[in-house]
Amino acid sequence: MTIAAKLAELGITLPKAAAPVASYVPVVVHGGFAHVSGQLPFVDGAVVKGRLGDDVSVEAGQAAARACALMIIAQLEAAGLLEKVARIVKLGAFINCTADFTDQPEVANGASDLMEQVFGDAGKHARAAVGVPALPRGAAVEVDAVIALTA
Amino acid sequence: MTIAAKLAELGITLPKAAAPVASYVPVVVHGGFAHVSGQLPFVDGAVVKGRLGDDVSVEAGQAAARACALMIIAQLEAAGLLEKVARIVKLGAFINCTADFTDQPEVANGASDLMEQVFGDAGKHARAAVGVPALPRGAAVEVDAVIALTA
Amino acid sequence: MTIAAKLAELGITLPKAAAPVASYVPVVVHGGFAHVSGQLPFVDGAVVKGRLGDDVSVEAGQAAARACALMIIAQLEAAGLLEKVARIVKLGAFINCTADFTDQPEVANGASDLMEQVFGDAGKHARAAVGVPALPRGAAVEVDAVIALTA
Repeated sequence: MTIAAKLAELGITLPKAAAPVASYVPVVVHGGFAHVSGQLPFVDGAVVKGRLGDDVSVEAGQAAARACALMIIAQLEAAGLLEKVARIVKLGAFINCTADFTDQPEVANGASDLMEQVFGDAGKHARAAVGVPALPRGAAVEVDAVIALTA
Repeated sequence: MTIAAKLAELGITLPKAAAPVASYVPVVVHGGFAHVSGQLPFVDGAVVKGRLGDDVSVEAGQAAARACALMIIAQLEAAGLLEKVARIVKLGAFINCTADFTDQPEVANGASDLMEQVFGDAGKHARAAVGVPALPRGAAVEVDAVIALTA
Repeated sequence: MTIAAKLAELGITLPKAAAPVASYVPVVVHGGFAHVSGQLPFVDGAVVKGRLGDDVSVEAGQAAARACALMIIAQLEAAGLLEKVARIVKLGAFINCTADFTDQPEVANGASDLMEQVFGDAGKHARAAVGVPALPRGAAVEVDAVIALTA
């Protein structure tokens, strides 16, 4: 089954691939790896803003992390790489949170679970999830990715 | 000398490889590189918690960073990769700290020094060490890694 | 045109490659990639300190990010890799900032724009830019890099 068909089966419509908010590109391919820039969580075209431990619940944070992962997939699609994913190698999840918030893994699962739903075993990845005090545009979550491509 | 023998010579017993606290895997291998997920500092089975600049001294932070590096090595061992390390390529060290704390490099040395002790010249790595306001489970330090494997 | 000539044309003099402030090395090469350690912003031999949203303006932050990128290039030069850059693959930009600061992308552009000026299309990279509460030596910005090398 193609990834496009799998997305359709899951009822997932990819968002429009966001333009970089600055002087960089969304995806760079070299040596069998695609490096995807840090993606912000867009829902209905707007960035999900706020801070875990303050005005964003864990559930809302998971939805934001999922939206970041959807945007990573949208960037792969826009780059013509959607059907060339050999493995989601690594996700870096940056969670905008208060100093007493410790559920970064649960939040990041919103991104991780989506990758496994869409790519199956190839979606199982290494991950680092950390808290940060602030993100671009006030986003609640940012996720970047290293992805292995088929030869 | 094997790495297992070197660990024994150094009197180091690896911890039990920690299960991921969420929806991801500890190690992904592709294209000659192993990407190791962010590891927390386990000592005697419990996460070392706290914040540098507040309730964790630089010395205790170094011990926590060393524990993260031990867990990275334990994950390599569990994945059958311990004797296949060609080079520790990159460590990412995230230090849970106050806004006025500036000794992240000294803390991260706890991880870096261990890598050189265990792997010798192959343990000399690139590194980024940054402060963060919060980490999973309240951990004091988190370290992830990119590791090159022998062919 | 060589990169050295391009730097001269741009009137850029590389700083002296900074020694690592701790137990690691500036650059590790493996599998066609160079991983460059997180670099601090040195201007006239001193680290640019401070915090965006507090005592460092966006313009000063951009200059600091540019100084980090110059130091990445200086590290490549010191490692004999300056003329072997196939692609700047990924920059990781860590911005020392207050919790209400949201212009991390604009700050990181100081590094990104320099890479494109110096390396042209090969300088167009993926990027993650996040806020952090504290950096080594009180630096305002830290930038690390993954760089693809010519065969």
